[in-house]
Amino acid sequence: MKIRLHHARVLTMEPNRPIFAGEVWVEDGRITHVKHVMDVKYAMEDDAGAEKAEADETGIWDQEIDCGGNLLLPGFKNAHTHSGMTFLRSMADDLPLQEWLNDRVFPLEAKLTGEDIYQLTKLAILEYLTSGITGIFDMYLDPAATARACRELGMRCVLVSGLNNFTSSLEKMEEEYRTWNPRCEDGGIVPGRRGANSLISYQLGVHAEYTCSRKLLEGVAALAHKLKAPVYLHLAETEKEVSECKERYGRTPAVFLDSLGLFDYGGGGYHCVHMTEADLEVFQKRGLYVITNPASNLKLASGIAPIAEFDRRGIPVAIGTDGPASNNCLDMFREMFLVTALSKLREGDASSMDAEKVLQMATVQGARAMGLEDCDVLAEGKRADLVLIDLHQPNMQPLHNIPKNLVYSGSKANVAMTMIDGKVLYRKGTFFVGEEPERIYENCQAIVRRLIPAS
Amino acid sequence: MKIRLHHARVLTMEPNRPIFAGEVWVEDGRITHVKHVMDVKYAMEDDAGAEKAEADETGIWDQEIDCGGNLLLPGFKNAHTHSGMTFLRSMADDLPLQEWLNDRVFPLEAKLTGEDIYQLTKLAILEYLTSGITGIFDMYLDPAATARACRELGMRCVLVSGLNNFTSSLEKMEEEYRTWNPRCEDGGIVPGRRGANSLISYQLGVHAEYTCSRKLLEGVAALAHKLKAPVYLHLAETEKEVSECKERYGRTPAVFLDSLGLFDYGGGGYHCVHMTEADLEVFQKRGLYVITNPASNLKLASGIAPIAEFDRRGIPVAIGTDGPASNNCLDMFREMFLVTALSKLREGDASSMDAEKVLQMATVQGARAMGLEDCDVLAEGKRADLVLIDLHQPNMQPLHNIPKNLVYSGSKANVAMTMIDGKVLYRKGTFFVGEEPERIYENCQAIVRRLIPAS
Repeated sequence: MKIRLHHARVLTMEPNRPIFAGEVWVEDGRITHVKHVMDVKYAMEDDAGAEKAEADETGIWDQEIDCGGNLLLPGFKNAHTHSGMTFLRSMADDLPLQEWLNDRVFPLEAKLTGEDIYQLTKLAILEYLTSGITGIFDMYLDPAATARACRELGMRCVLVSGLNNFTSSLEKMEEEYRTWNPRCEDGGIVPGRRGANSLISYQLGVHAEYTCSRKLLEGVAALAHKLKAPVYLHLAETEKEVSECKERYGRTPAVFLDSLGLFDYGGGGYHCVHMTEADLEVFQKRGLYVITNPASNLKLASGIAPIAEFDRRGIPVAIGTDGPASNNCLDMFREMFLVTALSKLREGDASSMDAEKVLQMATVQGARAMGLEDCDVLAEGKRADLVLIDLHQPNMQPLHNIPKNLVYSGSKANVAMTMIDGKVLYRKGTFFVGEEPERIYENCQAIVRRLIPAS
Repeated sequence: MKIRLHHARVLTMEPNRPIFAGEVWVEDGRITHVKHVMDVKYAMEDDAGAEKAEADETGIWDQEIDCGGNLLLPGFKNAHTHSGMTFLRSMADDLPLQEWLNDRVFPLEAKLTGEDIYQLTKLAILEYLTSGITGIFDMYLDPAATARACRELGMRCVLVSGLNNFTSSLEKMEEEYRTWNPRCEDGGIVPGRRGANSLISYQLGVHAEYTCSRKLLEGVAALAHKLKAPVYLHLAETEKEVSECKERYGRTPAVFLDSLGLFDYGGGGYHCVHMTEADLEVFQKRGLYVITNPASNLKLASGIAPIAEFDRRGIPVAIGTDGPASNNCLDMFREMFLVTALSKLREGDASSMDAEKVLQMATVQGARAMGLEDCDVLAEGKRADLVLIDLHQPNMQPLHNIPKNLVYSGSKANVAMTMIDGKVLYRKGTFFVGEEPERIYENCQAIVRRLIPAS
């Protein structure tokens, strides 16, 4: 399958490479050629410039896509989500956090089957595609069910364990790690070692410090050492979490977990809202990723993460939507705006966290945080996980500065095409995922009726 | 022109009226009939229920629109904007506030012609339509140019003066007031007294306390008394504004202006981020509207307005996007999410400001804040300013609670149709405004090239 994407503006997200008029060739899921046709200056060049980006080659393509002068860039990476929670969208809002968790989330989750999670994850995948998201870092109750939905619909997914005292086990986590990373050696997921067509990989993770015993966490650290693998978890999301950990162990979660050796092979924390100086030093020393979830942190009144401080210290940041019960939208445009806007508020400085940095977090750093180094930038040899942004809409005009337009005024309505692993899964409002959206909606509605008969 | 909108879920936004399956009839810009066909419970009824909403009447319609089971509600009211500032989108971001204003905004605005503002406003109108916005409260340099763009494209607009020491005059404001409110008597804009087909009305306003002399503000108060008219202005947007006013007059802006009699016939404040107890009492006593602009207040690092406090005191709140230089998106979905999410953060309470209240602000209270009482709810006799929300998209599923879906997970991509004054101006991604969007984009790009040759 050879695909030619031509008549595009191309933003590769490689360092210091400006947008140019060009085309991108794709074969068997990989980018085989990135063709620079001409430089463009946003305000000075219009589509006429891009029109010249015609290839010499004709007739050798299975599919030719005229990008209409629009913007091709690496797809967005949703670096923290719980896709199967779509059944709780708008069921558990406007409630205090403890009531939300104890009266809604936990009792309903206890009734979920693997088949439910498979169906509910498909609903989330449809939404990811509408937002240009080409990879997800998914923690949920049944990784096999999540993987099945992603494989069938074509979504790239890094599964991450949500190990805790109540569900799953160390043995199961190790087994899953080996199952989903078939070509890994003990030494983490080696880029390019995933099966050529494999959309699924797996990372070690625990739910959070406060849902795991010390013994379990020590076991996770031992497994991380054995596999030479990074570990991920919810970290410093709320003040309560931090203060309770300090009561328990005399240290903050990051410092305590690091003392167990949990982060000796890297990894990262989801949320990282309430961070101490010592926590920041752990992140710097271990090269950990912060995976920020700004909409969720607002909606659950958790706080604002110190993104500018991470940036000043060189701590890499990626962005996640969190699950649909705590956001409730699965939309990287909303999150990108919030990352910069909330940093400006927190710092009291309207120049904080410029749009270019945020776009880097949403694409390149997201991929690297998840262990998807072959999906980070738009370049030859990388997987063809791409999004096409419609610039011919009023919120993208005028074309002063396209990265700023994306971060400050972009929306799902600008996503003209989403391609994962060289396959067009969404284009101009239509899904190409092998199943009708209406059928997925009906299946999810049926699950809701069964789980919540009173609604 | 008789239009039948059928096979819809209808949310009238009247008090305590749940969504029902039904249809809406429109004639000559007004809603003539709202037909309740059957009750629907979100999770229990699907489109099959809505399918029954077929009218007995056939053949008498100029246009019949099958709403496909989707949601009809009153259009969103953007209660504070500066539409003509589209030329500054992505030209003035990530800068400290003073540099933003003094080095970018003011020098470039000084070069704008009325023709520029007319063209630039058209670009903003296109975006409003994509976000289901059917009315705007617009303060900018040349109200006549703004009005021309709105009339030509079909946007409902309440012009508001931005009177200050440097531009315009009291005499011009009075003349404009009488010009744009042809059927008003001295006593504010009387609902229904606008010309039957007039999309434009006008309110008295000043830019802000800090850009007006005391003498000018006294003149505005005298004019408000003469016309028995409300007055609107930027108010308590930044700490600096408040502290400088206290230095000047020994009082906060709201208290000082009220002491001049400026608010004796009502009105409202844009932003209202930094409010004292005394300010809140002025708002309560005078029945003033708060018009909140959460994205702008983040992006310019101004702060978070105390929306929950306004609500506890019964102070009505409406929502605005502010201008495209300070947001940069003209999107009510983003603003609605931010109103509730930032209130949750500020209050430290995830149950603060429920979605239903926010939806009320974005529709009914927006209309009333602007003096558009005949555009507030979806009911017989009201103007036909409507939006159709596509529920058949993944971010609107499952259908537990449609108002919560709108506020927490809605986006521009859900706007299936925008109707103003009984005219379909936007439907399924296509504009029906008498002019090609590409032409508007080109005209705006040309303005940018002239104003900012170096870009």
